[in-house]
Amino acid sequence: MIIVIQCTDRVGLVAGISALLAKKQLNIVSMHEHVDNTANLFFMRLEVDKTTGAEGLEESLREILPANALIKINPVAEKKIVVLVTKEYHCLADILVRNYFNTLGASVQCVIGNHNTLQDICRRFDIPFYYIEAGKDKNEFEEQVVKTIQKHDYDYLVLAKFMRILSHDFVSRFPMQIINIHHSFLPAFAGASPYRQAYERGVKLIGATAHYVTDELDEGPIIAQQIIPANHSLTVTDMVKAGKEIETAVLARALKLVFDDRVFVFKNKTVVLE
Amino acid sequence: MIIVIQCTDRVGLVAGISALLAKKQLNIVSMHEHVDNTANLFFMRLEVDKTTGAEGLEESLREILPANALIKINPVAEKKIVVLVTKEYHCLADILVRNYFNTLGASVQCVIGNHNTLQDICRRFDIPFYYIEAGKDKNEFEEQVVKTIQKHDYDYLVLAKFMRILSHDFVSRFPMQIINIHHSFLPAFAGASPYRQAYERGVKLIGATAHYVTDELDEGPIIAQQIIPANHSLTVTDMVKAGKEIETAVLARALKLVFDDRVFVFKNKTVVLE
Amino acid sequence: MIIVIQCTDRVGLVAGISALLAKKQLNIVSMHEHVDNTANLFFMRLEVDKTTGAEGLEESLREILPANALIKINPVAEKKIVVLVTKEYHCLADILVRNYFNTLGASVQCVIGNHNTLQDICRRFDIPFYYIEAGKDKNEFEEQVVKTIQKHDYDYLVLAKFMRILSHDFVSRFPMQIINIHHSFLPAFAGASPYRQAYERGVKLIGATAHYVTDELDEGPIIAQQIIPANHSLTVTDMVKAGKEIETAVLARALKLVFDDRVFVFKNKTVVLE
Amino acid sequence: MIIVIQCTDRVGLVAGISALLAKKQLNIVSMHEHVDNTANLFFMRLEVDKTTGAEGLEESLREILPANALIKINPVAEKKIVVLVTKEYHCLADILVRNYFNTLGASVQCVIGNHNTLQDICRRFDIPFYYIEAGKDKNEFEEQVVKTIQKHDYDYLVLAKFMRILSHDFVSRFPMQIINIHHSFLPAFAGASPYRQAYERGVKLIGATAHYVTDELDEGPIIAQQIIPANHSLTVTDMVKAGKEIETAVLARALKLVFDDRVFVFKNKTVVLE
Repeated sequence: MIIVIQCTDRVGLVAGISALLAKKQLNIVSMHEHVDNTANLFFMRLEVDKTTGAEGLEESLREILPANALIKINPVAEKKIVVLVTKEYHCLADILVRNYFNTLGASVQCVIGNHNTLQDICRRFDIPFYYIEAGKDKNEFEEQVVKTIQKHDYDYLVLAKFMRILSHDFVSRFPMQIINIHHSFLPAFAGASPYRQAYERGVKLIGATAHYVTDELDEGPIIAQQIIPANHSLTVTDMVKAGKEIETAVLARALKLVFDDRVFVFKNKTVVLE
Repeated sequence: MIIVIQCTDRVGLVAGISALLAKKQLNIVSMHEHVDNTANLFFMRLEVDKTTGAEGLEESLREILPANALIKINPVAEKKIVVLVTKEYHCLADILVRNYFNTLGASVQCVIGNHNTLQDICRRFDIPFYYIEAGKDKNEFEEQVVKTIQKHDYDYLVLAKFMRILSHDFVSRFPMQIINIHHSFLPAFAGASPYRQAYERGVKLIGATAHYVTDELDEGPIIAQQIIPANHSLTVTDMVKAGKEIETAVLARALKLVFDDRVFVFKNKTVVLE
Repeated sequence: MIIVIQCTDRVGLVAGISALLAKKQLNIVSMHEHVDNTANLFFMRLEVDKTTGAEGLEESLREILPANALIKINPVAEKKIVVLVTKEYHCLADILVRNYFNTLGASVQCVIGNHNTLQDICRRFDIPFYYIEAGKDKNEFEEQVVKTIQKHDYDYLVLAKFMRILSHDFVSRFPMQIINIHHSFLPAFAGASPYRQAYERGVKLIGATAHYVTDELDEGPIIAQQIIPANHSLTVTDMVKAGKEIETAVLARALKLVFDDRVFVFKNKTVVLE
Repeated sequence: MIIVIQCTDRVGLVAGISALLAKKQLNIVSMHEHVDNTANLFFMRLEVDKTTGAEGLEESLREILPANALIKINPVAEKKIVVLVTKEYHCLADILVRNYFNTLGASVQCVIGNHNTLQDICRRFDIPFYYIEAGKDKNEFEEQVVKTIQKHDYDYLVLAKFMRILSHDFVSRFPMQIINIHHSFLPAFAGASPYRQAYERGVKLIGATAHYVTDELDEGPIIAQQIIPANHSLTVTDMVKAGKEIETAVLARALKLVFDDRVFVFKNKTVVLE
């Protein structure tokens, strides 16, 4: 059983929670907590060695926690996701492979592409693929995407190299439910063509960032980041190629963290308890 | 105030400890714990926001903890160390600089060298340097070293590129008090000339390992390790040079962890709570 | 056009080769060379901007190079490979995906498994899968594997988490043609259960090594290695999971280097020109 | 002997240069070259195994190289540097230690501080320290700094955590001679308080960048960069502490590259031949 708590901090929270669990004969297998002192917030993720005994647990926790407490007990073990793509295959293929071998921690419901390049790879894994051309009318395009998403169950939308900027309206329908992979170490090189920007600036490392999508382009809470060394010998094309490897790795890692209920969001930042 | 606990694991330990602290009005600033399930051991490091209120705390803790509990409350804030060296300066100079600027987390009492190469750098930092030549008689050499150490207060001995193997007798006088930096990613390339071994084997990374010294050469509990990339273009000499940088970094990091009371030892392994 | 040269070193080699190419109006796009001074060997990899003009080039090169020169001009652009697997999917799936999207730099001819676990993923990518049970008779098993391999064209055999030790006879049929991924930073933890060994030793990093297979188990020339941090909180199972990510990455990188003709072997080591 | 060449690229440069050296009986120990195709520029760094035979070499090279060729033969082996500091010791102490043990590749002529905090550490290493208070008049301050610098020989100025922004006038006196360490992975977090910026943004890695100083603040050619992982548990103060370690390492590495004549500058970028 997994228990996730976020609330205002105060003295005795850990004592109260752990006493309650001990009383209920729930043995703590792993406990991670964090207190953000500037925001006076308490974050906790617990793994307990029983799958039963949760009856009344939330109520009991509410009695000892501040009123603003967010509590999740036994959050959905296998999240459902919809993946949005354009043409590049590397992140999607990685997700499809993990999905197929049941190591993604989520179940891919369908893939939506604004190009049909990746239709065949989805077919090979028996995953529905919807080709929705991004015409001139952005509203119309997004409306179709929303409709398609809504035909499916979903906990998260994953932008696996989806190269269209989503509107405020679209994003606000899925608050902290959209996860994007951006091909730079944000906040450096936000926006278009980060590898070209990196090349022009002559940086000695290139990176990738997985983050929640908010209204501000490439400004949402960062979940995971990684870099690899770069140098003068790399052309933009070389950087793009090298970057694909870490984009795949960073997105996979971020998804794992989110699907394992390890990621908390506050003040446009994440707390990742692992 | 720092509280460090190691004992047999059982249900309710966290609850008991945190309740006790709450009752004593001690607010937990940071809490790190680990349970080793194979050994059924519980490890905890707590930082509490008061420096008073420790009266009777150990006794109260003993009442709720298993009989085998090791408890340290307010361990020495600034450890005292004796450093042993041979000829290479990089680790020693780093320690002397941090010592001078009060960021080592320990206070260097003296330096003992089996060569006098590093005498002058010690003099410049007003640190006593003892030159004890390692002649043919190992026992005699070690006896002199022990005598010199015993003239000083010490919590730990740091082998900062001390290139002599210490005898069983010597090591057993200072159990888990000797910290060594070995210039390879152990267990690869234990023993002499690790960079030459690495060169011969053609590895694509070289490393450094800080570890407690036990009877078995280079087999003690590992505290910290790091690597850097290597390739065919590096000669043994190049590897030695490049390696010095991570030797310095890894030893500095390991010492910081030990001096902050973050390192627990069991079963020839370390638990590092940070 | 790619030109690859390995020979005894002597003064004027670069001058001679580059003069010859200039005379033939072949413009050098990239040139990498290495001299191993201990072995007195010269290694060079050239990319030239024309695809024609190679007529007589090898002969002209032989005239100016030492007699023992190995010269490859325009080596096969797309190597052919046979992949051997057991049960774990991660390396194979990565290879199949890159193969499908034509970014592997090689073409997968077939997959041979001593279990049939991975049959379906191969079928999905239209790659022939041969299930050859590893019974009690090792000779018989290997004979069947060899027969199956010989039905296909191949430049290299890739052991993508193939968990059987191959015999001397088998290995000697494919000298420097078999590439293996071992789940440790060799030479540490050679042989069986490297993650368990790493766990027992309490290392602070775990790694993966791609290498050519020779008679000596896990002792062949190393092509690529990588590590990730580890700590006390990881069980053996956690290490296995975390390790899969770098196994996949390291094997992919090693294969790319080999398929691009960047890897030279001598004295049980590799020179990787990139 | 080291030979460094930068010029317009054209066919046959390598052939011409290496033939010339062969004719002069100069054996190439190491040769690194790079062609920037977008700028049509050729960069080369050669190490030759003789220290004699350089007579007339530059003239001979000029005959075969484009008219715009920059040629350096036997550049100063030990550069002279002036170091500017404020209060933080880590970079300066590292430089002083390497200087003292003759491994810096340069010789520290003096240190100028706008605070006197670091006077004593300089005294301990017998390095002249000038305390020049940065009063209200920037011009006056800089004038005094320039005067002090000019009393010494210097090839480079090193800003080892010098926390004042230098004027256009100052910078233009020392074109590509000033090397700075900035405590972020530029271009992210340029300007003041990069760790605070990093903290606010919630990045998962923090970095350091060594670069040449130009008129544009933190916009000069990047020589070296490095990052370390970060997470939610780090306060700004923690980031500052952790960052010091890589600031020291990155500056040391950048200086080594510059002092070894491995760094070429063009188009606000560097080519680093190693």
